[in-house]
Amino acid sequence: MSTKPQNIKGMRDHLPEAMILRHYIVDTLTHVFERYGFEPLQTPLIEYAETLEGKIGDDEKLIYRFEDHGGRKVALRYDQTVPLARVVAQYEGQLILPWRRYAIGQSYRGERPARGRYRELWQADLDIVGSSSPLADAEIIAILTESLAALGFTGFTTLLNHRQVLGGIARVAGLDEDAAAGIYRAIDKLDKIGPDGVRAELLNSGVGAQAAARILNMIILRGAPFDVLEALSEQLAGDERAQAALENLRAIIVHLQELMVPPAAYVVAPQLARGLSYYTGAVFESVIETPPMGSLLGGGRYDKLIGAFAGHEIPTVGLAFGIERLHDLMEELGLGPRSRMIAEAFVTLFGPELAGTALQLAHELRTAGLKIETALDPAEKLGKQFKYADRKRIPYALVIGPDELARDEVVIKDLRNGSQSSIPRSTVVETLHALRD
Amino acid sequence: MSTKPQNIKGMRDHLPEAMILRHYIVDTLTHVFERYGFEPLQTPLIEYAETLEGKIGDDEKLIYRFEDHGGRKVALRYDQTVPLARVVAQYEGQLILPWRRYAIGQSYRGERPARGRYRELWQADLDIVGSSSPLADAEIIAILTESLAALGFTGFTTLLNHRQVLGGIARVAGLDEDAAAGIYRAIDKLDKIGPDGVRAELLNSGVGAQAAARILNMIILRGAPFDVLEALSEQLAGDERAQAALENLRAIIVHLQELMVPPAAYVVAPQLARGLSYYTGAVFESVIETPPMGSLLGGGRYDKLIGAFAGHEIPTVGLAFGIERLHDLMEELGLGPRSRMIAEAFVTLFGPELAGTALQLAHELRTAGLKIETALDPAEKLGKQFKYADRKRIPYALVIGPDELARDEVVIKDLRNGSQSSIPRSTVVETLHALRD
Repeated sequence: MSTKPQNIKGMRDHLPEAMILRHYIVDTLTHVFERYGFEPLQTPLIEYAETLEGKIGDDEKLIYRFEDHGGRKVALRYDQTVPLARVVAQYEGQLILPWRRYAIGQSYRGERPARGRYRELWQADLDIVGSSSPLADAEIIAILTESLAALGFTGFTTLLNHRQVLGGIARVAGLDEDAAAGIYRAIDKLDKIGPDGVRAELLNSGVGAQAAARILNMIILRGAPFDVLEALSEQLAGDERAQAALENLRAIIVHLQELMVPPAAYVVAPQLARGLSYYTGAVFESVIETPPMGSLLGGGRYDKLIGAFAGHEIPTVGLAFGIERLHDLMEELGLGPRSRMIAEAFVTLFGPELAGTALQLAHELRTAGLKIETALDPAEKLGKQFKYADRKRIPYALVIGPDELARDEVVIKDLRNGSQSSIPRSTVVETLHALRD
Repeated sequence: MSTKPQNIKGMRDHLPEAMILRHYIVDTLTHVFERYGFEPLQTPLIEYAETLEGKIGDDEKLIYRFEDHGGRKVALRYDQTVPLARVVAQYEGQLILPWRRYAIGQSYRGERPARGRYRELWQADLDIVGSSSPLADAEIIAILTESLAALGFTGFTTLLNHRQVLGGIARVAGLDEDAAAGIYRAIDKLDKIGPDGVRAELLNSGVGAQAAARILNMIILRGAPFDVLEALSEQLAGDERAQAALENLRAIIVHLQELMVPPAAYVVAPQLARGLSYYTGAVFESVIETPPMGSLLGGGRYDKLIGAFAGHEIPTVGLAFGIERLHDLMEELGLGPRSRMIAEAFVTLFGPELAGTALQLAHELRTAGLKIETALDPAEKLGKQFKYADRKRIPYALVIGPDELARDEVVIKDLRNGSQSSIPRSTVVETLHALRD
C-alpha cells in the first residue's frame, strides 16, 4: 500500500499545536461553566434518525443518515440541543430541574466546506433547563461574557433583544408577526447595509413608507440599556406582548448588574433577530469589531423545544460556543496559551552508562510536576539530540555527562540561543519552575 | 410529539455523576501522558472507508460504513491507530520523529452489546512513533503503571512478553511460527484453564506430547524477570530470533528499573500472546486480581502498521486505555473522585429585595475559585430552595436575610445534617475552602 489517504474535506486533523489551543479553549470554558454549578452531560454521536427529524427545518438535509448493522435508521447528531431534549424526556424521573448542564462535543453537518464552515464541528453548549426566571437568562449572558474575557477577547459586545420586541415591531408595521420573517431578515442586516439599505429592503418587501419609517426609528435606537427600553416602550405603546418583553429585558439587565457583568459588555439591540426559529423569548449575540466578523456566538430562550419529547413545555435558555470559530479567531488574533508545546525540558542521554542517571533525573522532574521528554537512543550523538529538541521547539535541554556526575551538577542549555550553564543537581527543579514563570 | 425516544443500545448517555468520573479519568491520564512529553492529536471520526479497510481482519465487518452527501464512501473510525497511520503519512514533512502522541476519543464498532462491550467506546491511545529503542517500550510501560496507580488501582501486574519468544516456543514445538496461531491461543489461556487444560488443547491441535511438554515447561516459568529470561534463554538455545527477543526484553526491564517502575508492577509471562496480529515485538498486558477480570488493557510494539500508508517501515510502540472498561471497573471498585457533584455550595435568594446581595456574594465566591449554584426564583420559599439543593446533594446552602445583612453575616447550613451557623461575611470564602479539604 503506497497511496496516501487524506482526511475528508471539512473535517480537520488537529496536530499538537492546534490541539494545545483547543485544550486551552475547552479547559477555560469548562472552568467558567463549573464555577456557576453547570454539570457535564455526554450523549452518543449516533441517534435514531427519527429523534433528529423534524426539528431544524430546511437544514435537515445536512444530517448524515445511514443504516446500522441491525438495519436501524440512525443519524449523526446535527447539534447538541435535540439530544438534550431526548435526555430530558428519557431521564425525567432522575433529573432535578432547574438543571444547569453543559456539553462539549462534535456535531456533523453535510455542508459545502468553506472558510469557517466545517462538516465536523465542536461546540460547547450551555443550558438552564426548567426555569423561566429572567435570572436564568442573565446567568447565561454573564457566563458568556466571563468566558470570552477568560479566553482573552476584548472589545466584544453582546446584543440583547427579545422575540416579542421583534413581534411588536412587525405588528406596528401592520404585519402578522408570524408572517414577518422577511422583515426580521431585513432589519437584522442593519449593521451590514445601514438604515437606507434596510429601508430599501423593507419597501421591496411591500412595507409602506410610513411603517418602514416607524420600524427604522425603533431599530436605530442606541444608548444606555434602560433608556433604549424606555424609548421602545413608548413606540410600542399598546402592544401588550411587546411591553411584557421589554419588562423581561429590564429584569434581565437588573440581574446582569447584580451578577457584576460590566455595563460596557452589553447593549439592547432591537434589530437583532437570530436565525433559529425556535427562540421564544430573549435572544442575544456577541459581536467583536476586530477582526470584523459579525456574530461570534449567540443564544436565547427557547421554551418549546426541550419539552418536545417529554410532551409538555420545559422553559429553557442557553447558548452554544462554536469551538471551530473560537479556534480560528484566536489563531488570527494570537490569543491562547503562550507556549504551544508540551515538553518544558529535554533530558539528553550522554551514553549507555549514564542513561540510568539521566532517566532518574527525568523521573524526579516529572514527580515535581514538570513535563519532560527524554532522548530515546543513548548511542545517538549529543548534537543530534539537541537538534531534535530544538526542532521540536523545546526550550531547554539538560545534560549529565561524567564531569557533571562527578560534581553532582547538571548542564542546562537554552536551545533558543545556545547559552548554557552548570547548576547543582539539587536546584534543577526550582530552576526550571522559575524559568517557566 | 409525545413518544419518548431512546438512546441506541450499546451507546451510552453519561449523566453528570458518570461524566464527573469520566472527566477524572481523562484528566488523570492526560496529566501523566503530558509529564512524559506526549502531545495531543485529534482526527475526525469520519474517514474515507478505504483508509480503514484491510487493516483489522475479520472485525472489519463491525465498521460503520455509509455514503456521505457527496456520494463518498466513508466510515466511522474503528480505533485510533489506523487514523494515526494516515496522519503520519499525510503530514510526514511536518512531523518530527520520534513522535510521542496521545489521542483521546470515541471509536465505533457494530458489536452485539453485552456487559462491558459497547458500540461507542472511548479510548486513550498512547504511542511513540519512529523509535525502535527498548527505552520507548519501557517508557510506555512506565506510563501504563503510573497511570493505573494515579487512577487509584492497586494490585495490578503487567505481563511482558515478545512475539519472537512466542515464535521461538512455536519453533521449538516444530511449528512454523506463522502457522502457530492456534498454539498461541492455547497457551494464552494458561491463567484460565491451567497447565493441564493447555496441554489438552495443544494435543488436540496436533502438537506431539514431547513438544507439548517442552512448551509447558517454558510457559509456566515464574520468578524474578531476569531469572525467567535466563531460563527461557536456555530452553530456546539456538533460536537466534528468540535470543534477540530475550535480549530486547532484558533491555526493556533495565530501562524500567531506570525509570523507577516498582519491580512488583511487572513480570515476564511467556504465555502472553495478545490478540492483535499486528504486533511485531514486545507485548504487554495489565491484569488485576480483584475483581477477577483478566486483561485490563494492553499494548505492544507494532513496526509495520504505522508506515503502511507512508510506504516504509516506521517502528512504533503503544497502547490503548479503554475508558469504558476503566469507567465500569472504577464504579465497581469505588475508585475516583470523592465528590460526584459540581456545585460546592448553594446561594439562596431570600427575596426580591435581597437577590442582588445574594448574587454579589455568589460572584465573590466564584471569583475565589469556588463552584457556586444559586437559586433562580427570588419569590420561591426558602424551604423549597433548601430542598432543591439537598436533592441535588449540594453540601452547603448560604443565606443572607435582613438580619444577616444588618450584621454583615451569612448563614451557612449543612444540608446533610441540617445544622447551621452564622459567620462573618468576610470569612465565607475561607470557611468553604476549609470545608472542602
